[in-house]
Amino acid sequence: MGDKKQKFVQEITSMEEDFAKWYTDVVKKAELTDYSSVKGCMIIRPYGYAIWENIQKDLDRRFKETGHENVYMPMFIPESLLEKEKNHVEGFAPEVAWVTHGGDEKLFERLCVRPTSEVLFCEHYKTIIQSYRDLPKLYNQWCSVVRWEKTTRPFLRSVEFLWQEGHTMHETKEDALEETKRMLDIYADFCKEVLAIPVLKGEKTTKEKFAGAEKTYTIEAMMHNGVSLQSGTSHYFGDGFSKAFDIKFSKKDNSLGYPYQTSWGISTRLIGAIIMSHGDDNGLILPPMVAPIQVGIVPIMMKKDIVVDACKDIEKRISNICRVKLDISDNSPGWKFSQYEMQGVPVRLEIGPKDLEKNQCVLVRRDNREKIFVSLDDIESKILEVLKDIQQSLYNKAYKNLEDRTYTVDSWESFSNIVENNVGFIKSMWCGDIDCEDKVKNELGLSSRCIPFEQENISEFCICCGKKAECMVVWGKSY
Amino acid sequence: MGDKKQKFVQEITSMEEDFAKWYTDVVKKAELTDYSSVKGCMIIRPYGYAIWENIQKDLDRRFKETGHENVYMPMFIPESLLEKEKNHVEGFAPEVAWVTHGGDEKLFERLCVRPTSEVLFCEHYKTIIQSYRDLPKLYNQWCSVVRWEKTTRPFLRSVEFLWQEGHTMHETKEDALEETKRMLDIYADFCKEVLAIPVLKGEKTTKEKFAGAEKTYTIEAMMHNGVSLQSGTSHYFGDGFSKAFDIKFSKKDNSLGYPYQTSWGISTRLIGAIIMSHGDDNGLILPPMVAPIQVGIVPIMMKKDIVVDACKDIEKRISNICRVKLDISDNSPGWKFSQYEMQGVPVRLEIGPKDLEKNQCVLVRRDNREKIFVSLDDIESKILEVLKDIQQSLYNKAYKNLEDRTYTVDSWESFSNIVENNVGFIKSMWCGDIDCEDKVKNELGLSSRCIPFEQENISEFCICCGKKAECMVVWGKSY
Repeated sequence: MGDKKQKFVQEITSMEEDFAKWYTDVVKKAELTDYSSVKGCMIIRPYGYAIWENIQKDLDRRFKETGHENVYMPMFIPESLLEKEKNHVEGFAPEVAWVTHGGDEKLFERLCVRPTSEVLFCEHYKTIIQSYRDLPKLYNQWCSVVRWEKTTRPFLRSVEFLWQEGHTMHETKEDALEETKRMLDIYADFCKEVLAIPVLKGEKTTKEKFAGAEKTYTIEAMMHNGVSLQSGTSHYFGDGFSKAFDIKFSKKDNSLGYPYQTSWGISTRLIGAIIMSHGDDNGLILPPMVAPIQVGIVPIMMKKDIVVDACKDIEKRISNICRVKLDISDNSPGWKFSQYEMQGVPVRLEIGPKDLEKNQCVLVRRDNREKIFVSLDDIESKILEVLKDIQQSLYNKAYKNLEDRTYTVDSWESFSNIVENNVGFIKSMWCGDIDCEDKVKNELGLSSRCIPFEQENISEFCICCGKKAECMVVWGKSY
Repeated sequence: MGDKKQKFVQEITSMEEDFAKWYTDVVKKAELTDYSSVKGCMIIRPYGYAIWENIQKDLDRRFKETGHENVYMPMFIPESLLEKEKNHVEGFAPEVAWVTHGGDEKLFERLCVRPTSEVLFCEHYKTIIQSYRDLPKLYNQWCSVVRWEKTTRPFLRSVEFLWQEGHTMHETKEDALEETKRMLDIYADFCKEVLAIPVLKGEKTTKEKFAGAEKTYTIEAMMHNGVSLQSGTSHYFGDGFSKAFDIKFSKKDNSLGYPYQTSWGISTRLIGAIIMSHGDDNGLILPPMVAPIQVGIVPIMMKKDIVVDACKDIEKRISNICRVKLDISDNSPGWKFSQYEMQGVPVRLEIGPKDLEKNQCVLVRRDNREKIFVSLDDIESKILEVLKDIQQSLYNKAYKNLEDRTYTVDSWESFSNIVENNVGFIKSMWCGDIDCEDKVKNELGLSSRCIPFEQENISEFCICCGKKAECMVVWGKSY
């Protein structure tokens, strides 16, 4: 067993001391992002981008398996097009970047850089949907979008970010609602299986839903410090945009109808979720499923050929079963240990001359820092076993955090007490009135995270006004 | 043998009649792109985007195998940053889109939407390169860029397009020059092996090189009508940007030096190259290596269960060896034939009750429209064989077109005569003077495509001025 208290990485602020600073330290020192002279925009460095590529690859496969096709829409939206759906433009116009000049010429109509692409998809759908035979249309795009935020933090909130946006059209309301839920389930399964992050699934309140949507479903993840992170959303639009854009199709009975629409998205914000769900005071901890490097090999006494040769041999043997990196740079082993800790590489193999004499190596887990000796004969099976175990342990730990920080309250007094001493998900009954939602915001500083799909009957009465409750809602602090 | 003259697709203008209209017809009817209300920007539809995904996947693998890492830089460039390298800004400033407002506020400094990202990479490199140990830096990004073009055509020239841009930094001039050539070779190999397009490799003249570069290498492809298409470029910058951005590193001997830089890119323009290299009057012809659907199965007499079952069985059998689509939509077989012709699907399988009685199916090649009967027992091996043969035949045909349309001239008179009657690559000797280059442009309407790496000694004298020649250059019309 290793010394669990040892801290290789001294430059990271501890979580307890300042969680926000811990976060930005990790992002910077693990070389995930860098700042640029473009205010509020981030540079995603190779290690950060490789995590995003792993996210993309897995999700893209899930989208394609469920019949979705990728497309690419223009990055600009003419002002008049953005204005076609009233609620939508009200939500987005205040936070878009406007292009007013092309070269030396002033544009006749200004263009915004897409903050989201509903209106572009609708315009296209109008030209390609004529008949029920053209439905459903199941499109997705991977791109970047821009929202003019004043306060920014890498991955969590930035002026430009990378995301995917699915946009679908359906013959019936039922089909569209089913799609909205299907995609939310895909996000939740992905978070659980790949990112090792448990999420709460539910519906946003009217106040919190997407501009122009009839319903917004959400997955809410719980960060290490109890703060919630909205990690993916799926919207049902009814036929609101279809009517605004006059998208009509001939139904099976030859009458004309408006198709029903959905959209859904996740973004590089998920990298923020990984950091704050699993990281510790030594830096990042990556679930093996998304780790760019799953196993790092560190030779001890690199001057000995026998050591380097053995490391190369092992690298070759395991390169078919995992993403491995042999580090033969001329940095010291200690420096390399520290680097791999910081970057959250799930497994480190240390191989020195003494180990080789015993036909073994040292395997160090990043998650619990356990050291075990592994016979070189068993290396493949042991690595697969440990990677699987790390993936599961990270999920279990995150799930325990979510459970430990979920509270149930049935009176305003208990609500205030909990909020004073804890951060987490707080369940209560609610009448559905926005005034009560505002009161919780103003007096306790919490927003509604969602109305969970799994409802409980805590009491008959709204936590705020005491009137008859309509549903159980979950409150929390959020990024 | 099938009827080679039969033309299923009536709506496409013939190449002979109007090549430009043929091109836009194919792009539109094969459902590669659509227009949007954003002037000069294209919507890339699922079938077009799937081709791009195949291009990306193959090239990305080649980049990673040669040690390159992907990153993501902001899409905006502050005006002052763009202005840091004089030649660069002069080349790009006239054709950029300017963001002047964020939400309701006027920006303190306007931002352009990246037309290319040299300056962003340089700014980042300044912060991460300190020592020779930090070199080389081999970065690439996949993104979209914007150039405010007035005359646009889908894939060939548009206001926004998708591309990859590699940006690398090296310790020595030699390393950087080697990288510049390595990446051009990767592009040329990719065009040959995957797109079945032969290219001419060479160096751009001073007049035609990239703004800010010391050298620009290019691959020039020959379209069906003899017009050249610049299909990929690789630039050597020397230490010009390094000095402008004050990027210094400590060398092995402890002195300070400026690193040497390259950049290289290809774009969705390659899809235009595929269309115009291989297409015919029935539409697109896709090389199997990039075809989203390699084999389309069309059941004849779909009402018979035995037919549909057999088709499903074959689909399942071959789905591991190729990208296959079984079309059981309720369109007629004739409509489906026409659709697959138009979309350039390399192989079509037609399966009807009579075929099944004989344990066979009909295999139709898109490239030469040959029909053969294939025993269902041999279907896997036959498909692999035919796909391979189509890939090779398309290359051979394109290579023959390039050879047939390459001319050598040694006098102004022969030059004028060739240009009057032909379009293609025209080789001649040249003194290296820009005045002669301008004369060819003004009097014959041709630009220099490149100074080929493979030089020939046609004569001692410049084709224009008769003075001593410096090199052989290739002239052509271009998109």
